[in-house]
Formats: sequence, structure tokens, C-alpha cells
Amino acid sequence: MTMNILITAGGTSEKIDEVRYIANHSTGGLGKAIAESFAQDPATTITYIHGKHALLPIGENITYVPIESVDDLLKQMTALLTSQTFSAVIHSMAVSDYQLNTVLDRQELSHQLAAKISPLAITDLSDTNALSAHLDTMLADILAPKPVADKKISSKSANLIISLGAAAKVIAQIKHLQPATILVGFKLLVDVTKEQLQAVAFETLQKNQADFILANDLTEVGTTNHHGILVNSANESRAYTTKQAIAEGIKTAVITKLKG
Amino acid sequence: MTMNILITAGGTSEKIDEVRYIANHSTGGLGKAIAESFAQDPATTITYIHGKHALLPIGENITYVPIESVDDLLKQMTALLTSQTFSAVIHSMAVSDYQLNTVLDRQELSHQLAAKISPLAITDLSDTNALSAHLDTMLADILAPKPVADKKISSKSANLIISLGAAAKVIAQIKHLQPATILVGFKLLVDVTKEQLQAVAFETLQKNQADFILANDLTEVGTTNHHGILVNSANESRAYTTKQAIAEGIKTAVITKLKG
Repeated sequence: MTMNILITAGGTSEKIDEVRYIANHSTGGLGKAIAESFAQDPATTITYIHGKHALLPIGENITYVPIESVDDLLKQMTALLTSQTFSAVIHSMAVSDYQLNTVLDRQELSHQLAAKISPLAITDLSDTNALSAHLDTMLADILAPKPVADKKISSKSANLIISLGAAAKVIAQIKHLQPATILVGFKLLVDVTKEQLQAVAFETLQKNQADFILANDLTEVGTTNHHGILVNSANESRAYTTKQAIAEGIKTAVITKLKG
Repeated sequence: MTMNILITAGGTSEKIDEVRYIANHSTGGLGKAIAESFAQDPATTITYIHGKHALLPIGENITYVPIESVDDLLKQMTALLTSQTFSAVIHSMAVSDYQLNTVLDRQELSHQLAAKISPLAITDLSDTNALSAHLDTMLADILAPKPVADKKISSKSANLIISLGAAAKVIAQIKHLQPATILVGFKLLVDVTKEQLQAVAFETLQKNQADFILANDLTEVGTTNHHGILVNSANESRAYTTKQAIAEGIKTAVITKLKG
């Protein structure tokens, strides 16, 4: 069956300054296995969006699109989904939940906070909840996103505070941009029960209108073994124990759905 | 000339939680060029401490030591410098100035701060400096290093605060551990004048009892071209324009000093 497939793999990285970044660890090994499984059919075309340091699949029918930040990813994803029709989008990338707001040192934070508290007529410091709400409004302002020019870090500060805000939820955009595509999402949890894993997978599926979610637990992911369950929209699941088996399972699920 | 050389290259990475880390960007390309230059003499032995994703030099006389955090680096460095005699230590690694203290969300910070302010009898909020000092003591406590078990990040927080503290200054330890070795340090600045570059390099040399500092400016570092100056203990400098030339320049400087 001839298909046009979009795969994302590896991790995103958010710049803190010219030399530092926050990265989501992911080898991209699973995305590579999935891409190579689909690439076996020479008529199938694959677009592979990948983070830096991600393992790259080999295949003449694969187009590579490197990205760094969540914003980059969203831009590339939007451009691709509005210009091409994809049979399926397999979104295995480890996407950061957060992006940089600002960086400042602790003394600066104390100083800015004091400057905001001073002019206020807070007469009753004993009401902790009211005070907490006041402080939160002030902190929201101090820790809000600042232009890049203000973000240069001096290595002379003894204490540094990095303020992060929510990044775009890329997975939630996919079905909005292309409702007819088959969406396979991924969920990585850490040390949960099999029941919790399936429950969170199904919740993620519903929230993002995904067709399948591959859920895995970091404590069961190694270089050779890779346990994972593929949950469908009827909340049924299939279990796999290697990257290769997961890749084949996803390909079969996508083809079966396309045919059905 | 037969030598035993210790080289560090690439960047360190500090774990935030199981899946996220803060990395210092460095390809390790310069360290690789230096290692391969020294490795041309088959009798010279090289120990190569490198960060993840660093480019690796090729040579049968090279021993590879992978590290992640600044603490890892310090441990490996200490073990090597107390068990072997090195002709020179060439410390080109991009080492993080900071390590993780704790992670919390903004609401948590507001709440903890309110709980500390409430019981205090701060009668005069108008004294901004006094208030700032009070707040800084409180923040120092809230943002202090916490045990790893407390560091799990929930992706449900809309705002996250990462508190960082000063990491160990690895370069400062080298001459303490092995006073007779020749120490070549590195300094990377961003967009400074040639005079500032040399001044900061010489300051770094004196502070760490280094024999040479290779100083470079990120705006003049590319994949092919790489401008750098090698400053010695007499505050004299030589300029280079490629990684290869820098590597040869460092090797020549080390050999000349060993012979002298």
C-alpha cells in the first residue's frame, strides 16, 4: 500500500542563551525503527522531523527535517500539514512541555519583589492565603516572558533562576490541521502500573483526537528491549517488547485502519 | 617526544529529572582536533574525557572516558590526576557554571514565600532594601538544593521555576591536584573586542594557575573557520584561524614548555 507518512522523532531543545539549552532526552531509536519499517515499501514517502542528536533512519524515500525548539516543530508541522496530505502522522518526538520565559539571579528576584511589595498597603501579613495570591501576581509579572536581548546569563551569579512557561501542545494541533489523517501519539511515563499506563494512554488519545497511542514506561525501555502498549480508540491494547515489534505493530495498525 | 596527555572535550549536562537536562552546547570539534594532533606520535598516550554527543577523535593510543555532569567530571578528573602523571591537561570542555538546586512551580513559590513572611513582624514595608534582604534570605532557603526524590516535575504546572546554584570550578582544581602538569584552559566569550578577549584570557590564566589559555569568541567560531588566541603566562598571545592551527599551536606550546 502506497502511503505518505509524517514521523517526528528525537527530542526538542529550548535555548537558554547562546551556549546553554534545556533538552528532552530521546535517542530517536523508536522513530528510526518506525520510519525504516514504513520505508520498506519504496513507493511510500516519509517525512522525518527530528531533533538534534536523534538517530536517523536510512532510506531513499525519506526526507529529513531537522528542528530544535517546540516553536520550530510547530512551524514545520503546520507547513507540512497544510501543504501535503499524509496517510498518517506518527508523533514519537519527546516534546518539551515548557519553553523559556526569562532568566534572572536570586538577588534580582528579591529586589524586584521588594520593589513591588513596598508601595502596597498590605496591612495584614497574617492572612497567608491573601498574601500568597498577592505574591503570585507579582511573581507572574517578574517571571513573565522577556525579549531575547534580556536573556544573556552572567556566569558570575551564584544563584540563577530559570522561569519556564507552557510550550505549545503540538499533538493537539495535528487533527485540527488535518482531520482525516491517522494520528499515532506517544506517551512516556516513569514507573507506573500497567493499568495506569493504559488509563493515561486512553486519556491522551481522547484529549488529542488520536487514533492510537503508544504508551511506554521509562523503566522498561532499554537499547535492546522496549516494552510498549498500543492503545486504540476502543481502549483496547496490544503489548510489544522490542522497538522492532512496536514499529511493525504501528505499521499494521495504520494499514488496517486505512483499508477499513 | 613521548607524553601522557589528558584532554576534556564536548559539553557537560545537568539532569533536571528523568527525561530533561540542561546542556552546554559544544561539538567537541576542537578537542578532537587537539587529540588527533597529539595522537600522531604513537608513543604518546591520551585520555579523552568527553560529554555526550561530543565528536570523538580516532587513534589507537586514545582512552575514552564519557561523563555527564560537572560532578562526574570532577570525580573522573580527580581519580586520573591522583593516579597518573600527565605531561599536560588540555581542558577544552564546555563546563556548566551551574548545577540543579531544585524545581518548583510558581504557585508553590508564592505559597512558601507567604508562609515565611506571615509570621514575621515586618512593620515597615517601605524600606525596600531591608525588605529585599529579608526576601533574599527566604528565597535562599526555598530555592536551596533539595534531594533528588523531591525533584520530579509534573508537566501539569503552567509555570516552572528551575533554581540553579554554582557548580564546582573544575579548572581551579587541576593545579591543586597536580602542580607540575602543564595546564591549558579555554575561555569562550560572546561578541567582545580582541582586547577584552585577551584581558579575560589572562585573568582566567592567573586565577587558575594555568600555563596557557585558548580564548575564542562564539561569533568567530564556525565548522570550518575557528578564530582563537593562545595567551601565555607572560600575557603574550598568538592568533590562529582554524581548529587545525589551534591544535598544532597548543601541541607546539606544550612541547616547547616541556623541553624548556
